[in-house]
Amino acid sequence: MALGRLGNQQRREAVLAMAAALETDAAQIVAANQADLQAAAADGLSSALVARLKLDAAKLEGAIAGVRQVADLPDPVGVRQLHRELDDGLVLERFSVPLGVLGVIFEARPDAVMQIASLAIRSGNGAILKGGREASRSCAAILEALQKGLAASAVSPQALDLLTSREESLALLKLDGLVDLIIPRGSNELVRFIQDNTRIPVLGHADGVCHLYVDREVDLGQAVRIALDAKTQYPAACNAIETLLLHEQTAADFLKQALPVFQAAGVRLRGDAGSQALGVAEAADETDWRTEFSDLVLSVRVVPDLSGALEHIRRYGSRHTDAICTTNGDTAETFLRSVDSAGVYLNCSTRFADGFRYGFGAEVGISTQTLPPRGPVGLEGLVTYRYQLRGDGHIAADYASGVRAFTHRDLPL
Amino acid sequence: MALGRLGNQQRREAVLAMAAALETDAAQIVAANQADLQAAAADGLSSALVARLKLDAAKLEGAIAGVRQVADLPDPVGVRQLHRELDDGLVLERFSVPLGVLGVIFEARPDAVMQIASLAIRSGNGAILKGGREASRSCAAILEALQKGLAASAVSPQALDLLTSREESLALLKLDGLVDLIIPRGSNELVRFIQDNTRIPVLGHADGVCHLYVDREVDLGQAVRIALDAKTQYPAACNAIETLLLHEQTAADFLKQALPVFQAAGVRLRGDAGSQALGVAEAADETDWRTEFSDLVLSVRVVPDLSGALEHIRRYGSRHTDAICTTNGDTAETFLRSVDSAGVYLNCSTRFADGFRYGFGAEVGISTQTLPPRGPVGLEGLVTYRYQLRGDGHIAADYASGVRAFTHRDLPL
Repeated sequence: MALGRLGNQQRREAVLAMAAALETDAAQIVAANQADLQAAAADGLSSALVARLKLDAAKLEGAIAGVRQVADLPDPVGVRQLHRELDDGLVLERFSVPLGVLGVIFEARPDAVMQIASLAIRSGNGAILKGGREASRSCAAILEALQKGLAASAVSPQALDLLTSREESLALLKLDGLVDLIIPRGSNELVRFIQDNTRIPVLGHADGVCHLYVDREVDLGQAVRIALDAKTQYPAACNAIETLLLHEQTAADFLKQALPVFQAAGVRLRGDAGSQALGVAEAADETDWRTEFSDLVLSVRVVPDLSGALEHIRRYGSRHTDAICTTNGDTAETFLRSVDSAGVYLNCSTRFADGFRYGFGAEVGISTQTLPPRGPVGLEGLVTYRYQLRGDGHIAADYASGVRAFTHRDLPL
Repeated sequence: MALGRLGNQQRREAVLAMAAALETDAAQIVAANQADLQAAAADGLSSALVARLKLDAAKLEGAIAGVRQVADLPDPVGVRQLHRELDDGLVLERFSVPLGVLGVIFEARPDAVMQIASLAIRSGNGAILKGGREASRSCAAILEALQKGLAASAVSPQALDLLTSREESLALLKLDGLVDLIIPRGSNELVRFIQDNTRIPVLGHADGVCHLYVDREVDLGQAVRIALDAKTQYPAACNAIETLLLHEQTAADFLKQALPVFQAAGVRLRGDAGSQALGVAEAADETDWRTEFSDLVLSVRVVPDLSGALEHIRRYGSRHTDAICTTNGDTAETFLRSVDSAGVYLNCSTRFADGFRYGFGAEVGISTQTLPPRGPVGLEGLVTYRYQLRGDGHIAADYASGVRAFTHRDLPL
């Protein structure tokens, strides 16, 4: 409760203290992560999971820079969003306020702890964190550092708490009224399990099945470059593409350039009959269109036209991020207006769907739900608002009877 | 889908056509409601439910005026909320877009159909409506009129649909991916049932347990007037108060003035030991503090001070709307800052918690969830947003390698 009433400067300094403590403890954190990675190798975890788990010195340095960026973001709390006279002496205001307590459940991705903890404290929220068993040593080391940082600030170290058992994690999901938002970071199965087992709002996404459609009118070299980046720059990420849709009049020329490039990058392609006829080695089945491979696998389909691409995305997509490569302005506008995903892109890689890259400083997660917050979510996902109404004896009966009338006059913010 | 792409003027005209058709059919609608009311009387429905069900000519006229107001509200769709250069030639925009399809489930309250249908069409959304059996005649007559109106507009009458059976209503709750938001309007039990049986986001509130705290330093006459209005102006409403909290040094003087006023208005009081000693006739038990009476019943409790009032509201409140009557500025600020409800009010009636009264033109409902939209929700609860990113071959690898750097420069909206 007290945290929610601390001022901007105190919350900012607390986040900087967290960053400093992470730096001080960097060697221990990387060592703890090494131990997690060795255990993961012994347990035979998938390469996608290991990629998410890995936190080397460079990745940690990047994460700490991210924490500092969060400290310098504009304060999301106490912003007056509405200021309106309802009648003489009756004034309505709306202010942003912290949500309260966040419940964060993640598998692997120890870097997510730093991101989310800093966003939580910056926005005046407490956070209860539950990491996966595979990241237990990394998370404990990070949390210890973060709490040391808070101990040197106005924020109580108790504002951050780490759960360790599965039982505690299940109990967390039942704390409606005490926990205000659940943020899952991890596999699709984890997110789906959480969505099915809590009444607390969940910020996140189960699937990231992103598409790139290569139009008939296109800069082929650019399209190949974008496809390669969108698949391979970080294949474990949710904003990597899983399916390439090729206009039937472009497919042959595109694949002629792309096949050797993908092969060199170690990308395995699975295609429909049309793309197999043009050299794609393996066959794709219905399941592949719905699959987030999170790996160097890409499904390929030849479509007759833009409508065919839109229909495929509508049916198999996860409303995360979908892109088109085209040089035709009308085609571009139709795609951007018709695809109902959190992100719709023209002539660029889907990998830009990210809070840092959007300039939010950091991200809590990427939401594929329809309601806001949608897409990459920064601090704005961690505050809500409250209406304040100040009067001087104003009663509703006077307006119902017509004795008084509302003025509804907006005042300066 | 087509509805979502219609322009502002077409959606505006469709709403005006709906209003005109409601006016044309007014006599049939009122007659259908009369038939529902007679059936309700025969079935012995509660007075609170009957009050919600009633739709006489005056209430219908008010509802139609509300529909016209919705037509004239600023278009919530296509608003550019963000415009940012990420790098040279890589530009991010965020636009408001319709949610898609709303599922509306309500008991009684046939006026809610008109409100919600007009808000849905104004914001480019389709709506599937399911009314309670007790309002079946009213709803059918209203829907017929609304669809007649749409038939005379650019919007297809199929944008609004009425379900009639309980089975259809249960099926509606399972349509994740097709229905984007469920809006329940009705009893606490209905809302809770829906929240427990769907993964689709639910906009609404189970309880409206609102409080008025009368401080030690207070204008007694004003406090009595506000308490009377907040309880009696429309006791079936969710924003009516259920509990009066009295500072122990004010309780005697307040009740001396208030008891005859409440008695004259037919309000039954249930008090704790302290207020019973001061003349409150009936005893309140623990259950009463948690109960939304929706009727002329008010629980009363004497508290030692502001902290006692805050603690009571924290424990028993539903985070809907809570008010304080005080002449002390510091006390007022502490209350407004400490109570975590959608609405926190000073020296005015809780009955102002309403979309019309806030100047939103109409309301979809009042949300007591923590996340936005919170409190009375107008059009802004029915749109979401989408990010558009336009580049010219931009790939993420260039930023990861340091070949290029983000500029993150905000452009004019």
